[in-house]
Amino acid sequence: MQDLGEEGLIQYLISQFALSGNLVGIGDDCAVIPSEKETAWLVTTDSLVEGVHFLYDQIPPSEAGYKLVAANVSDISSKGGEPQYAFLTIAAPKNLDCEWLKSMLQGIKAACGKWRIQLLGGDTVSSKRDIFLSLTLIGTAIRSKIKYRHMARPGDTICVTGYLGDAGAGLKCLQSNVCRQAQTLVHAHFHPQPNPKEGIWLASFDEVHAMMDISDGLNCDLRRLLSASQCGGIIEIANLPLSEMLLRVCKEYGWDPVELGLTGGEDYCLLLTMAPDSFEKIQKSFYETFEKDLFKIGQVLDCPGLRYQKQGQAVQLQLSDFEHF
Amino acid sequence: MQDLGEEGLIQYLISQFALSGNLVGIGDDCAVIPSEKETAWLVTTDSLVEGVHFLYDQIPPSEAGYKLVAANVSDISSKGGEPQYAFLTIAAPKNLDCEWLKSMLQGIKAACGKWRIQLLGGDTVSSKRDIFLSLTLIGTAIRSKIKYRHMARPGDTICVTGYLGDAGAGLKCLQSNVCRQAQTLVHAHFHPQPNPKEGIWLASFDEVHAMMDISDGLNCDLRRLLSASQCGGIIEIANLPLSEMLLRVCKEYGWDPVELGLTGGEDYCLLLTMAPDSFEKIQKSFYETFEKDLFKIGQVLDCPGLRYQKQGQAVQLQLSDFEHF
Repeated sequence: MQDLGEEGLIQYLISQFALSGNLVGIGDDCAVIPSEKETAWLVTTDSLVEGVHFLYDQIPPSEAGYKLVAANVSDISSKGGEPQYAFLTIAAPKNLDCEWLKSMLQGIKAACGKWRIQLLGGDTVSSKRDIFLSLTLIGTAIRSKIKYRHMARPGDTICVTGYLGDAGAGLKCLQSNVCRQAQTLVHAHFHPQPNPKEGIWLASFDEVHAMMDISDGLNCDLRRLLSASQCGGIIEIANLPLSEMLLRVCKEYGWDPVELGLTGGEDYCLLLTMAPDSFEKIQKSFYETFEKDLFKIGQVLDCPGLRYQKQGQAVQLQLSDFEHF
Repeated sequence: MQDLGEEGLIQYLISQFALSGNLVGIGDDCAVIPSEKETAWLVTTDSLVEGVHFLYDQIPPSEAGYKLVAANVSDISSKGGEPQYAFLTIAAPKNLDCEWLKSMLQGIKAACGKWRIQLLGGDTVSSKRDIFLSLTLIGTAIRSKIKYRHMARPGDTICVTGYLGDAGAGLKCLQSNVCRQAQTLVHAHFHPQPNPKEGIWLASFDEVHAMMDISDGLNCDLRRLLSASQCGGIIEIANLPLSEMLLRVCKEYGWDPVELGLTGGEDYCLLLTMAPDSFEKIQKSFYETFEKDLFKIGQVLDCPGLRYQKQGQAVQLQLSDFEHF
């Protein structure tokens, strides 16, 4: 699996499972199935594996449940859709504590309540050792408003809807046992806030061209978006939205806030590109609607690759993204 | 988990996730989501966990992939639906052999080709140790024709569409290392044949009342159907369809063919109930259409519980069903 890597596996899947008809399949945040005239179904799946995505002793079980739903909601939101129906698969060892399971399900229930999702089914099986949770989420969208990864255009302004790196720093705090001083970062790691209302709102603008959610870090996910759009891009590091808490904790422990902001993962905010002359209007209206900032962080270019600059000066960064395999 | 059991967990899920609107959720083979006027989406999920549902060294990887699709197709078929779109989740350890994975995916591809299913997405993640495969399958059906578990009526004839116990006996052969003499049974275990055409055909009859697929053995699944219908039933053991190969292998190794037929699991044929005076007509037409038998095995009763008789004489059977937890 390491030889192939996650991208290699996805490319293999795309090559093997060709599509016919009006469908969008593997390679974007959601699959798109045309439904009635103007609408479409969006379908996405996300999983949490014990020992990889969470540690049994470290995550409160209700947060594991919440997070599983939140990650899926984020995918639906990133296409401009509304989450609707969920299907949950639980594989758990026979000796799993019943209270852990019920608490995890209460986290799922709370998240489903929050985003008005109805849990309609799934599968419950036993596993030999580790807990495995997988959720498939079905949403609906207006077909003509769906924003894909491949729609970015050279010259577009690149934006994000939230702070970067907080969740990644929260995980690092947990791993380094310094979580007492950084509760908000740990909370960002356990309890991410996807942007479903923002996603639908942003998708309503024709000037917004491409959109996806940031789950594996900006550096990794922006490369995916640019590559799908056959474009490149440049990011101004000085414009990256980094929270005060992130900066403070990084200063205290000698961590690099830019590296965490670019590679931390699990931000679950939205990454989008839009016509440059629309940014001011949309940013203002975004602030009026959601009382928060839309951050302009860079520009789409017509030459391939992702470059970084710091106050206008080109910089070389050594970044290592999260690798699934 | 053992305290709760699979049925307990499903009951807990039903109690926690109440539904609103015109939906069918947890508790039948598929969820049902009304779509356009006369149609509905059916959604089901099935999983295969290494060490529980398959052994890495024993199952050809392409058969693991095929079987995952077949189990889901069987669920869609049992409601009278047509399979359409699949979403695959793979969790695998980093050191998994790439060739194993590709061969497994070729099994999925072959099965998708066979039943004209389009694979549209899913998730690929790493696991710490074991392989975990999960597939969500979406199908379509004519809403008024969908057959549920809870529609059986006292007096109905109970039928099945295929031989019972072959797959369970195949597994027993593998576990007992006697598979050379029983290739067809081992094949039934690795390569089950769901009944999608039969399911749609049977669902078209108003005289067919309740339907489900047999995945955990007739004894277990018929109890579920009868309990959902608030009925009971009686099975005539002499009428159970047991294959010649099953009878021969059981004779050779001293196994009980009736026990295997009732509890073996993974038959993936259909279990249905119908108005008793329609049986002859439907059986004849079924034979003309599919060139195979529809087997009448018992009757729905209005008192709860499932009873067995042998040539008309009540018998007590000590059966232990497959337990997920």
